[in-house]
Amino acid sequence: MSESSDASKERLRLDAPADALTRLYFIFGSPIAHVRAPVVWSTLMKRHGVNALMLPGDTDADRVDIAIAGVKGIANVDGMIFTMPHKFTAMKHADVLSARARRIGSINLLRRRADGVWEGDNVDGAGFVDGLRADGVRLEGARVTLHGCGGVGRSIGWSLAAQGIARLTVFDVDDARARALADAIRQDSRARIEAGTLAGRPEMGDVGVAINASPLGLHAGDALPFPVDRLPPHAVVADVIMDPRMTALLHAASARGLKVHHGRNMMNHAMPVAASFFGLDDAFDWNGASVQG
Amino acid sequence: MSESSDASKERLRLDAPADALTRLYFIFGSPIAHVRAPVVWSTLMKRHGVNALMLPGDTDADRVDIAIAGVKGIANVDGMIFTMPHKFTAMKHADVLSARARRIGSINLLRRRADGVWEGDNVDGAGFVDGLRADGVRLEGARVTLHGCGGVGRSIGWSLAAQGIARLTVFDVDDARARALADAIRQDSRARIEAGTLAGRPEMGDVGVAINASPLGLHAGDALPFPVDRLPPHAVVADVIMDPRMTALLHAASARGLKVHHGRNMMNHAMPVAASFFGLDDAFDWNGASVQG
Repeated sequence: MSESSDASKERLRLDAPADALTRLYFIFGSPIAHVRAPVVWSTLMKRHGVNALMLPGDTDADRVDIAIAGVKGIANVDGMIFTMPHKFTAMKHADVLSARARRIGSINLLRRRADGVWEGDNVDGAGFVDGLRADGVRLEGARVTLHGCGGVGRSIGWSLAAQGIARLTVFDVDDARARALADAIRQDSRARIEAGTLAGRPEMGDVGVAINASPLGLHAGDALPFPVDRLPPHAVVADVIMDPRMTALLHAASARGLKVHHGRNMMNHAMPVAASFFGLDDAFDWNGASVQG
Repeated sequence: MSESSDASKERLRLDAPADALTRLYFIFGSPIAHVRAPVVWSTLMKRHGVNALMLPGDTDADRVDIAIAGVKGIANVDGMIFTMPHKFTAMKHADVLSARARRIGSINLLRRRADGVWEGDNVDGAGFVDGLRADGVRLEGARVTLHGCGGVGRSIGWSLAAQGIARLTVFDVDDARARALADAIRQDSRARIEAGTLAGRPEMGDVGVAINASPLGLHAGDALPFPVDRLPPHAVVADVIMDPRMTALLHAASARGLKVHHGRNMMNHAMPVAASFFGLDDAFDWNGASVQG
């Protein structure tokens, strides 16, 4: 077994996807197979010369707490992203929380600060709203429906309420969860905030922006989160699901000629916010690179 | 922010150092910066089309137990390697142990079996002995000294005792640890097994193979683990330290004209054994590829 020459060692290093000094980030979720963060972040890091990886963390609800605690014990782990269903349980692993994370009641980001303190934030809603605006969707005065009041739904609801909308109606398979979110947001917004119910068929004839923030559409054969046939012709239908890119909901909306807004917009626009939170924004040079995922 | 085309998505995937389906392995150690396993294993995996990474796990003794337990909770983690100082504490995280790991009293490998059971093994000694033999060092009838009775030293001691050597003398900064290892090995070997002491200057005039398995040499300015000036001209001086490749010990031995055996031989020869343990040997195709690290 020959010793390698200095030249071949150098090639080995340049070629290596990891080495002893690689900094690690994890995205924890279940299921994980559809999650795009590892490929998007790891590719960006590599392209910008950052010796770091975003790794998939396939962890069910029973094991996620021990997994988070364990990963915090690895000194070269700098941060974590949380996706379904871990955004709520992850919050207790933060030593300090941003104001919006406290309001939303869940986190999607956790970082190790230079002083060793673990700080949590939630940028799902900020990314979603930035994505809508970049896609030309006007929110001022809009009547909005939000279906799904889980981790990402709550974050979007809180962000929407600060955008000058006229009305927000929130729905969930659990009516009590929808009412709780509406009651919380209402205290902090000048918009009319209501909880709808899925028991009847929601009247959506005056809705300008209809958003799915539920998991419906992730799997083939899922029911539509809401019917699109009563939406007005100017309505925008938005989905948070990234894969498939065209969910059954977006297909149905597109077939009716409505504008559709893809789930990847949220990730693309949350990424600069998250990169800044992780201290990676300078390395990524957002002005020069578009995030394609 | 444009949507990527199918072609650019494909490029992104091919270029990506990680994606949602990447299987993970960790090497836990402290310090970690000199450890070569991440670059060597991750490069091999990539070259052979295995979607897996060997990641550095920089973890001190206070946190390694919670880190191991946490990493076991991540379903796409398939195995771990342990280096200094974690080979002993890691053993309690194995549900089952190989016979040699039980004898040695420490593990350097842990894998998740298909049935979910975590199995521990110790292949340091096997790799070291294979490396010596591949380097042309004859062990039959040899008089051997082994300096350092930690995790790797114990593993080497047990493996040496089964090689038909005439005599093995083990040393440690902790004399009691050397005596305990000698007493344990003696019961299972036909060789003469002794514990030496570092208090006097060891008589090494008849030693054929002198091995450093202590951490001395990892840092510039470390004392030599043993003097080389009394070794006979035919003696081989072997080090387990991989970085620097030429330790002060090997420099001194080389200056005297003695044959030196580099630490990387152990890793190179332990790798096929470890890859087989991790179920990666078919993918790596050892016959076609030499391991250069």
